[in-house]
Amino acid sequence: MEPGSRGAAPGGVSVSAVLPAGGSGERLGGATPKQFCAVQGRPLVSYAVRAMERINWISDIIVVVSPENIETMKTIIEKYGHKRVTVVEGGITRHRSIFNGLKVFAENEFSSHLVQKPEVVIIHDAVRPFVEEDIVSKVVMAAKEHGAAGAIRPLVSTVIASAADGCLDHSLERARYRASEMPQAFLFDIIYEAYQQCTDYDLDYGTECLHLALKYCKTNAKLVEGTADLWKVTYKRDLYAAESIIKDNLSQHICVITNVKETLAQVGFLLPESLKSQIKVEAISMSLSKNDSCLQNIISGQCYNFVCVNDERWAIQETQELVNMLEKSNIPLLCPVVLILVHLNIPENNSFSIGIEDLTMIKKFARETKKKNILVYGLLIQYK
Amino acid sequence: MEPGSRGAAPGGVSVSAVLPAGGSGERLGGATPKQFCAVQGRPLVSYAVRAMERINWISDIIVVVSPENIETMKTIIEKYGHKRVTVVEGGITRHRSIFNGLKVFAENEFSSHLVQKPEVVIIHDAVRPFVEEDIVSKVVMAAKEHGAAGAIRPLVSTVIASAADGCLDHSLERARYRASEMPQAFLFDIIYEAYQQCTDYDLDYGTECLHLALKYCKTNAKLVEGTADLWKVTYKRDLYAAESIIKDNLSQHICVITNVKETLAQVGFLLPESLKSQIKVEAISMSLSKNDSCLQNIISGQCYNFVCVNDERWAIQETQELVNMLEKSNIPLLCPVVLILVHLNIPENNSFSIGIEDLTMIKKFARETKKKNILVYGLLIQYK
Repeated sequence: MEPGSRGAAPGGVSVSAVLPAGGSGERLGGATPKQFCAVQGRPLVSYAVRAMERINWISDIIVVVSPENIETMKTIIEKYGHKRVTVVEGGITRHRSIFNGLKVFAENEFSSHLVQKPEVVIIHDAVRPFVEEDIVSKVVMAAKEHGAAGAIRPLVSTVIASAADGCLDHSLERARYRASEMPQAFLFDIIYEAYQQCTDYDLDYGTECLHLALKYCKTNAKLVEGTADLWKVTYKRDLYAAESIIKDNLSQHICVITNVKETLAQVGFLLPESLKSQIKVEAISMSLSKNDSCLQNIISGQCYNFVCVNDERWAIQETQELVNMLEKSNIPLLCPVVLILVHLNIPENNSFSIGIEDLTMIKKFARETKKKNILVYGLLIQYK
Repeated sequence: MEPGSRGAAPGGVSVSAVLPAGGSGERLGGATPKQFCAVQGRPLVSYAVRAMERINWISDIIVVVSPENIETMKTIIEKYGHKRVTVVEGGITRHRSIFNGLKVFAENEFSSHLVQKPEVVIIHDAVRPFVEEDIVSKVVMAAKEHGAAGAIRPLVSTVIASAADGCLDHSLERARYRASEMPQAFLFDIIYEAYQQCTDYDLDYGTECLHLALKYCKTNAKLVEGTADLWKVTYKRDLYAAESIIKDNLSQHICVITNVKETLAQVGFLLPESLKSQIKVEAISMSLSKNDSCLQNIISGQCYNFVCVNDERWAIQETQELVNMLEKSNIPLLCPVVLILVHLNIPENNSFSIGIEDLTMIKKFARETKKKNILVYGLLIQYK
């Protein structure tokens, strides 16, 4: 697929997304709203935006923030190279913010934003950084069929109702209920109609979009079982958890680069295959790696580990290009980049041994790149 | 208070605790049940036990584990020096395990355990490591008055009910409901009666003790608003969060030791006072530190930072005793212990300067203790 081209959405519908990011984060107990808290040096909202952005059949991503955070959000978009994102001013409640986000697709006054009304709109939280394409796709498909759909999870605690005296009135049977999570998706016309009909009371005190679709459009949302990683960052401990998950992912993601010769392509195929069960692997060819946006996608996907398999002696020049691209990309490198140069020594090349010059050259190269927080290692493999 | 003596429980009642720890931890996705997962090198259950154990008005702590984990649990108790703990074999469900735990206080067949029936029994989860005395005390007081009580928290997600076709039936108004958390407490006779009356269906499929007290004893539990740190370790991300919280606490806890002379006592008073707003401080006198159990309590409370204020030149001997006690204590040191020796130089002592011998001695001492993972630093302060 050409970089930048849109893939087909599930069910062939046009899809865009609204991310309400206007919350004040009171429950976190800090001054910074949680969506702007840094996790591994990067604001939480940027992870959620990236999660949406990586799904190439999502056309537009509307991020709704409170007026005082519009500049902050724009800076984040620029700094992390986010694409297809429009920043919109939110309202004083969650529902009012989502409504503002939807208006961008439907009302003339917002026409300056130049976004097209989608058939299906996804609503997702800015504080749920780990959403995967699979669940988004399921929710979109279900919304196409049922008009509305949302991810759910089993309840962790029993839910109880209290009486006026602060004592237990009754407890709910845990198995019969579910926690309503995000993402949710709606036929655009249904959710927009619901928001237009919505009372001020619902706009001010409600929180549940599925409820609005049911109440105002008689649409019973399809409920889709989600994975545990959909959880919402709510408390400080959730920031800790998010940080650890991101660190874990960093060491679990590798990009294998090979040049196009047959033997190498074979190694380049076998290595990812054998690694796949352990970690997340992307495999690209050296020529593709010269494509800037391809590499940018990999880096913005938080892959910081590269194995470059080559049969030209250490291929310093190729590697230098990679280093240059890493430097030139506007994506901040949040942790050291590891480049492992594998020199595949194939007998017919007649270049069996390494000379001192080779070693000196690679050492010098590694010293230079280390200053840029890029760690280069060399590996010589005899291959028959 | 004498070490080892029981303080008075809130309301003057006798109190013991039951910790069900029989779960299989399916939601965690690992082979080890979550209560036995290591967090900073120590099993989660050990933190929960310690949290109960530090409340000195709790007489007995019954930990209920599945048959295959009894030996593991006994090893944990020995390794981490837990006191007042009895290990009991659990049943196949949560309610059956709690019932087994309660039987220890009430039935002859368990008389070998020699524990006395308490007026109020606390039920707490082995996978909620951060419970504080304050909430336990509130729940016990409320149970004394109302017969039953439990901690609650606001709901994080909206709760919804699904229809038979997997679509939304209705959503609950979030503000009207609460999540039922732990700890809970009961008049022993009420909860024991409830378990005795309980149907097999409830024992096998129920999860909520407050529900049993209501259903079988017509006791409407008092609901007590708890803090965010009561949350239950359920998923892998919760283990990450627990780990970060524990690490955070380690650096936020200090013990100031002074000898009994007046000036020092004053410093020993002023230092903790000025630190209190930032970190958790314990202050003890040098003579008290010679009391083994006092120091053990501090270490088992995960305090690994000591400031020893003294006016005898470096007081190596006193410090050596402290080091010996740390070594002799059976409590594993989970991270380096930091000892800062503050030599308070008071003019009337006439010992203004430090000699080379002093420096050599303290350096040698620090080198020796470093091998034991105890880091010693010296600080000279001129005091007028």
